[in-house]
Amino acid sequence: MPGEPAEAPRAKSARAYSIATVCLSGTLDDRLEAAARAGFDGVEIFENDLIASASRVAEIRARAADLGLRIELYQPFRDAEGAPPERFKSVLRRMRAKLDLAAELGAPTVLVCSSVAPDTIGDDDLAAGQLHVLAGLAADRGLRLAYEALAWGRQVSTWEHSWGLVQRAGHPALGLCLDSFHVLSRTSDYAGIRSLPGDKIFFLQLADAPRLDMDVLQWSRHHRLFPLQGGFDLAGFTRAVDTTGYAGPLSLEVFNDVFRQADPHRTAVDAMRSLIALDDAVRPAAGQPGPLVPAPVLDGIAFAELTVDAESGPELQRWLGLLGFSHVGQHRSKPVQLWEQGGARILLNSSVDRSAPAEGSAAISAFALDSEQPARSAERAAQLLARPLPRTRAAAEADLTAVAAPDGTQIFFGRSEPDGPYGWLGDFLATGDRSGHPAGITGIDHLSLAQPYDRFDEAGLFYRSILGLRDDEAAEYAAPYGLVRTLAVHDPGGRVRLALSVPLLRRGEWAPGVTHPQHITLATGDIEATAAALTAAGAPLLPIPANYYDDLDARLALDPALLTRLRRIGGLYDEDAHGRYVQLFTPVISGRVFFEISQRIGGYRGYGLANEPVRMAAHRALRRAGRPDRGGRLGGVRRGR
Amino acid sequence: MPGEPAEAPRAKSARAYSIATVCLSGTLDDRLEAAARAGFDGVEIFENDLIASASRVAEIRARAADLGLRIELYQPFRDAEGAPPERFKSVLRRMRAKLDLAAELGAPTVLVCSSVAPDTIGDDDLAAGQLHVLAGLAADRGLRLAYEALAWGRQVSTWEHSWGLVQRAGHPALGLCLDSFHVLSRTSDYAGIRSLPGDKIFFLQLADAPRLDMDVLQWSRHHRLFPLQGGFDLAGFTRAVDTTGYAGPLSLEVFNDVFRQADPHRTAVDAMRSLIALDDAVRPAAGQPGPLVPAPVLDGIAFAELTVDAESGPELQRWLGLLGFSHVGQHRSKPVQLWEQGGARILLNSSVDRSAPAEGSAAISAFALDSEQPARSAERAAQLLARPLPRTRAAAEADLTAVAAPDGTQIFFGRSEPDGPYGWLGDFLATGDRSGHPAGITGIDHLSLAQPYDRFDEAGLFYRSILGLRDDEAAEYAAPYGLVRTLAVHDPGGRVRLALSVPLLRRGEWAPGVTHPQHITLATGDIEATAAALTAAGAPLLPIPANYYDDLDARLALDPALLTRLRRIGGLYDEDAHGRYVQLFTPVISGRVFFEISQRIGGYRGYGLANEPVRMAAHRALRRAGRPDRGGRLGGVRRGR
Repeated sequence: MPGEPAEAPRAKSARAYSIATVCLSGTLDDRLEAAARAGFDGVEIFENDLIASASRVAEIRARAADLGLRIELYQPFRDAEGAPPERFKSVLRRMRAKLDLAAELGAPTVLVCSSVAPDTIGDDDLAAGQLHVLAGLAADRGLRLAYEALAWGRQVSTWEHSWGLVQRAGHPALGLCLDSFHVLSRTSDYAGIRSLPGDKIFFLQLADAPRLDMDVLQWSRHHRLFPLQGGFDLAGFTRAVDTTGYAGPLSLEVFNDVFRQADPHRTAVDAMRSLIALDDAVRPAAGQPGPLVPAPVLDGIAFAELTVDAESGPELQRWLGLLGFSHVGQHRSKPVQLWEQGGARILLNSSVDRSAPAEGSAAISAFALDSEQPARSAERAAQLLARPLPRTRAAAEADLTAVAAPDGTQIFFGRSEPDGPYGWLGDFLATGDRSGHPAGITGIDHLSLAQPYDRFDEAGLFYRSILGLRDDEAAEYAAPYGLVRTLAVHDPGGRVRLALSVPLLRRGEWAPGVTHPQHITLATGDIEATAAALTAAGAPLLPIPANYYDDLDARLALDPALLTRLRRIGGLYDEDAHGRYVQLFTPVISGRVFFEISQRIGGYRGYGLANEPVRMAAHRALRRAGRPDRGGRLGGVRRGR
Repeated sequence: MPGEPAEAPRAKSARAYSIATVCLSGTLDDRLEAAARAGFDGVEIFENDLIASASRVAEIRARAADLGLRIELYQPFRDAEGAPPERFKSVLRRMRAKLDLAAELGAPTVLVCSSVAPDTIGDDDLAAGQLHVLAGLAADRGLRLAYEALAWGRQVSTWEHSWGLVQRAGHPALGLCLDSFHVLSRTSDYAGIRSLPGDKIFFLQLADAPRLDMDVLQWSRHHRLFPLQGGFDLAGFTRAVDTTGYAGPLSLEVFNDVFRQADPHRTAVDAMRSLIALDDAVRPAAGQPGPLVPAPVLDGIAFAELTVDAESGPELQRWLGLLGFSHVGQHRSKPVQLWEQGGARILLNSSVDRSAPAEGSAAISAFALDSEQPARSAERAAQLLARPLPRTRAAAEADLTAVAAPDGTQIFFGRSEPDGPYGWLGDFLATGDRSGHPAGITGIDHLSLAQPYDRFDEAGLFYRSILGLRDDEAAEYAAPYGLVRTLAVHDPGGRVRLALSVPLLRRGEWAPGVTHPQHITLATGDIEATAAALTAAGAPLLPIPANYYDDLDARLALDPALLTRLRRIGGLYDEDAHGRYVQLFTPVISGRVFFEISQRIGGYRGYGLANEPVRMAAHRALRRAGRPDRGGRLGGVRRGR
């Protein structure tokens, strides 16, 4: 199944990894199974998941044991401390019941979160006394209470305050639960945590989040992310906790609208990857080796591979010819063509690859990275649970390890050289064809990959952790049919760039003409010369609306000569603080893929995303124009009211 | 097509209704056509929509004219006032270009929103002087500038400040644009607007929004709603503006993530409905008659109709029998059965109704309302653009007008009496069958209707405006497969109740076992007697997990006898400040519908929504248990890691 985690052993860690069942979707059974299959050592059982389960407590305990999962925590117990005396009676009653349940469940610790009830009394002595009493009930059963400050707690909302109460209560069965979200959503100054005694930190919950300016309760309930997926300093926070000598599990507690409805097996693997990467980021600073082999330096995108069929194959060959590529090689054992121009290499693969994942209907079915150490790149990917893809390989062929990206795209690690164990060029027999008239293309600038809705945050973490890529600024733009989120990533050397995109909301049925073609951006050092060559070759590029240039002129007061040239070549233009960018586009080919040709002038760091709405509308207009039955441009079809 | 608006004339209004193109999805052409077909008089052209259009400005103007749409406004012009002198040169250049464009477009007014640029100077004299200069450029072309304070403007963020600058600038071609979102997101004290001179309000933009505690820019960009769909006092605000003598259009400007990707024809009708309803709410207070006939009093849900086929028909008949219903009537001309118990009536319709909309795959295909004036209910629905549904009717049959709700459910207006023009009971021939053993069901308490994702806010407005229903508190809960939003509505007399629900995010492919069955809640005055009768009849009710009762006990310390009875009957329990509620459920029948039997004790106002996650998990467990190949309860299938 697509959610199957890698069977490769994860990077070894002495630490126990745990996940709260609330992070995952499905029945409690679905969630436990997903956690176990992703390799977690333990779980937190979220109360509502247990209440709704058709299984009795003893059955759940047995099931977890069968799956090799420790039940680390039962959570949450709410509105305990600061209760008015009359209500405290019902708190005691409820606590006894929940402690009995935890004991039966085999959970050694129950999480108590700070009260939110409006009648909570702000009296630390009262609250500490009550916590002492409750801890006594826990101790009677051989259990412990971990007290946590909710960021929106009525009286207690900081870790310092919760620690004050724990000290004041002074009961051995009462300790702290630290939750990175509750701490980091309120402050970036968490240095004081280092001075806590580690043995009084009973539990550590980890969650990242994007930096949002909104009500903290809503932020927490809907937008948490796994570590290294958001904007919080999870590594620094975890390091601070480690300093105390805390020896308990690293446990994830993430409330996220998408994860709540996504395949729990996929989510659990994503979650485990985040913990491994976090652990790797934390330990070197503590003087220990990280569990991961370092990400090797990447030299660039070796090739992009398009899977073609009887319809799209000839069409893409025609287009590669128009763009100045030559069909320079033919694979020794497979129906794969190598097309080349400058440093840009594109493979057309007309085999049906049964190993390709079902979701591999993307136009760009694979790409390869030139790694300085391909075997280590592959080893790191395996350590981070990338799903390995089996490849059939003849004896003399290169040892290209492939893994599946979250969107199903296959990623190969190799070397663009004819020889050596990873030299994939040797797998191709030279055709001797150099018939293409080069148009000045020098390489692949970047790949634009539309992502599956449920896997966008997973994809960001995947590329950051496995390939060592870094984020460019994330963006959002209004496309003709809805908002689009983007995240671009690049390697430190600037030789590998990927632009990921996803609709802000999952698309519904009303999406006429909306496809999510992927595209390959080809670099040129002289966009005008390239445009001239393409025009000479008869390549029909994407027409750009005149209104666009009028606006460009009004906004940027470009040199009139430049504007004239842009209009002539149909170029889109962008600039940032570092440089300028000019883009040309082909039409969408076979409904699945198109090419961008771009020139970076100066140190421009973007991807021309500001122009995406115009590009998309232009592709839409071209598509309509090609299908007159669907109605043409404004004024083309006139219907009365 | 499903998006076809009603052809019935909308409620007459002397006011011009307008909509900004940014409210709708699609190409500019899609948007203009949708606005025209929904009956708008004019549009605001949003700049980005024009820039991305393949049509030249003159073509867009001609197209709008063809469609009978005035172009009321071109918007927005940004970062004008307060620019440092050096940058102001580029503002002038840009303004000249945009004014030329507006003139060519035939837009009499250009919207200027307050500056957000970090270099904006906080000097009112400078800003007013600049606005004066810009207004002069507009006047040169016979145009006007409408200046609007963005709630997040750098220096100008209140309507009072924008009005101060307009006064200070003192140019006849410069006036105000008031936007309800920018005013009401900052303050509920807008009384000062009444003292503005109406002829200096050049434009009025209307948007509602839910009350959210978040960054105002994000709130505005993603969560705006049409008037009467959110939490702002749009009627009071519009009345205040009317007091000034403002005579321009009511124009909608709504940025909403869902509307941006939904069928623009549907959205435009929803938008028009909101304006008609707003206009109706505003005018009586101004001493004018509203355009709408008042919503007649409703006496209850006359019947709920289930469309059945060869599989579900016999199954539902069996279940209605088990629940104590009798098949008391048969329709004179159609294959429709009438089942009855107490005041609850359910129709089973086995005809294939070609007039039913494509989305009418809901389990509950129709319901009828007992209206004191059915013809007036139908008239109001037509005035508010409800889509009329053609009905075949024999001469002697009741005149039941039907309209389609946003989810495609058919709504009839009639009278539950045998005679008279609207007396639908006379359409059924008595079968003489009274074989059912009544189980104490007294009527239909409420209908629970799962809504299409794109139409949830539309549905709320539909029921509020067309039927005169009122909101109960909206809620959100965590179901096993994701978060769910709900909105319940009821008539003032408490005789008609509907519970609407929708996933918080549109569901994706991973949703095993998730169906969205709808359900009919049957009322009983004695849930235990009803439970006993159902048990005696052999009705297999939904098993509720034991963990649920343990938690109920721990939380609420219910009378042990009550708890024992709840456990015995499999009842779910809820309470609010007004009373208590006990619920029983049937299994899901034919995968599409189920029944709830409930008792309201005291003045309980809710719908038992807090129990929905438990109910859903129990239905899921039952479904799994019935399909052993899918894996059963915890412990049923043991797979190693």
